[in-house]
Amino acid sequence: MMKTKTIKEIKTIINNNNSFLITSHYSPDGDALGSVIALGLLLKKLHKEVFYHIDRAFADKYSFLTDIEDLKNNIDHQKFDVGICLDCGDLNHLFGSEALDRCSKIVNIDHHKSNTLFGTVNYVDIEASATGEIIYELLEHFKISLNIEMAIALYTAIVTDTGNFKYSNTTSKTHLIVSNLLRHSFKHWEINKKLFDEHKKTKILLMGETIKNLNFYFDGKIALSILTQAEIKELGALDEDVEGLINIGRDISGVEVSVFIKETKPSEYKVGFRSNNYVDVGEIALELGGGGHSRAAGCTILGNKDEIINNIINILSKKI
Amino acid sequence: MMKTKTIKEIKTIINNNNSFLITSHYSPDGDALGSVIALGLLLKKLHKEVFYHIDRAFADKYSFLTDIEDLKNNIDHQKFDVGICLDCGDLNHLFGSEALDRCSKIVNIDHHKSNTLFGTVNYVDIEASATGEIIYELLEHFKISLNIEMAIALYTAIVTDTGNFKYSNTTSKTHLIVSNLLRHSFKHWEINKKLFDEHKKTKILLMGETIKNLNFYFDGKIALSILTQAEIKELGALDEDVEGLINIGRDISGVEVSVFIKETKPSEYKVGFRSNNYVDVGEIALELGGGGHSRAAGCTILGNKDEIINNIINILSKKI
Repeated sequence: MMKTKTIKEIKTIINNNNSFLITSHYSPDGDALGSVIALGLLLKKLHKEVFYHIDRAFADKYSFLTDIEDLKNNIDHQKFDVGICLDCGDLNHLFGSEALDRCSKIVNIDHHKSNTLFGTVNYVDIEASATGEIIYELLEHFKISLNIEMAIALYTAIVTDTGNFKYSNTTSKTHLIVSNLLRHSFKHWEINKKLFDEHKKTKILLMGETIKNLNFYFDGKIALSILTQAEIKELGALDEDVEGLINIGRDISGVEVSVFIKETKPSEYKVGFRSNNYVDVGEIALELGGGGHSRAAGCTILGNKDEIINNIINILSKKI
Repeated sequence: MMKTKTIKEIKTIINNNNSFLITSHYSPDGDALGSVIALGLLLKKLHKEVFYHIDRAFADKYSFLTDIEDLKNNIDHQKFDVGICLDCGDLNHLFGSEALDRCSKIVNIDHHKSNTLFGTVNYVDIEASATGEIIYELLEHFKISLNIEMAIALYTAIVTDTGNFKYSNTTSKTHLIVSNLLRHSFKHWEINKKLFDEHKKTKILLMGETIKNLNFYFDGKIALSILTQAEIKELGALDEDVEGLINIGRDISGVEVSVFIKETKPSEYKVGFRSNNYVDVGEIALELGGGGHSRAAGCTILGNKDEIINNIINILSKKI
């Protein structure tokens, strides 16, 4: 009921105003971009003036989205009736949040638990798998019929934040919405391939190196791999290509804890921990001066590589 | 309309008979097992006698399925009113098809285009992403309310055959059915992890070896890797662990054709081809004495490794 009331408020604000600035978080992902684009298309259908203020630091793989090239930040010296912030939990993470000073009202639409409710009106639904789910509901309330461009944008939003429907945030409602989106015949499998199954060559080579460097301890319950700066550079890879490599160890049958170590500079190592079932790696990272959650945590350690590994294995031996 | 008529016929057969033998194809996958189990549960709810004749050569990862341990082939000297064959295109692929001689009627439920319609009644829906989708419809026609065990079995069926909703066979209807299945709160993400994100250690090590052996040709448009029997054995891997490794090359940005070569025995090589957009690898495989489709094909070549690679690259140079 609360939700319906809020969505009605948002509808009233949209109906009663003319110029809208849409914003989202830094380094926008598929949910941010898809939600921004779908909302922009909705507002344009309602004959509103739409402006975007979006961080351009997003991945090339999103280039298939309609209107992605329109997300220019041409907002100089302008005032807006309403600023709409999507998929962003707080003002620190909002790209160019100072632009909100030029908006008479702020509408905050998000699905993050941590949202600080910084808007004039806040629609935060933590049950929604993606902000795209909320934009879909907004469309329904406007009785605006979905077109294929909106469907593609919202599919991208939802597929991104649910890890292609495999994370626990995926609900019955998520699939129902996607069922409606797919009534518009678009090649969802091509979007899927672009978002999840296309990798840079350097990323694959780093993956090979990570596997080559894998070591197992305690009957295969711990998998540990390490990459040095020399290895990363030799393969022509970037530091960012290392993202996700820790999952290789985590996803091996029998492994409880995956440790991934990246040399950041001489004698400095970034250590990540992932666990599958029972080891609280947050505690371990805390012990090592870092932090995190029970299944995913990390820390930075200075010193000698072999000593660091020995120390980590020693700490883990008490938990495994 | 045709479908409704057939489903009514099947309903009549089920209602008018008592003993049922459920069978499926050799090496049953998630769709076969999930469909068999869901149908078994439906028949049991209708107080029918249910027998299974199922190839036990299925992966351990399916052990979470309810009733999986009941799929014993204890069918000696028995006759059955009806044999129901699920997810199997023809009698050659049916596990222990001779058991059908002991069934008075045969019901054939499948979604493969190639189905030979070998049943007394045939319900072949090639629009269905999985046989599990058809079993779901059958359940609806019986107005039997789905329980959580059925939901898990059918989720497993559909998720398997759609590659977790990422293949082009995934439709609006697929997501609608899954939306209904997820109304029963089960941990779909754990099933997903078991089916897609848990790998044998030897598989990961083979993956590393495949990446290490990758070579690129023609500006990175061709990726070629090879594994010898010595390498496979040294890692303690099995021949079957090689499955899917060809996708590593295919999924690298810029690659059009991925070639994966496995030594099967001295001087004998199994060669797989995958293409992304325009090269018809079926033609290439045909030229080399094999066959397949335009995007996935293969052949077996006898001879010297380096000569075989040179020959393949030479043929590909004309198509790339």
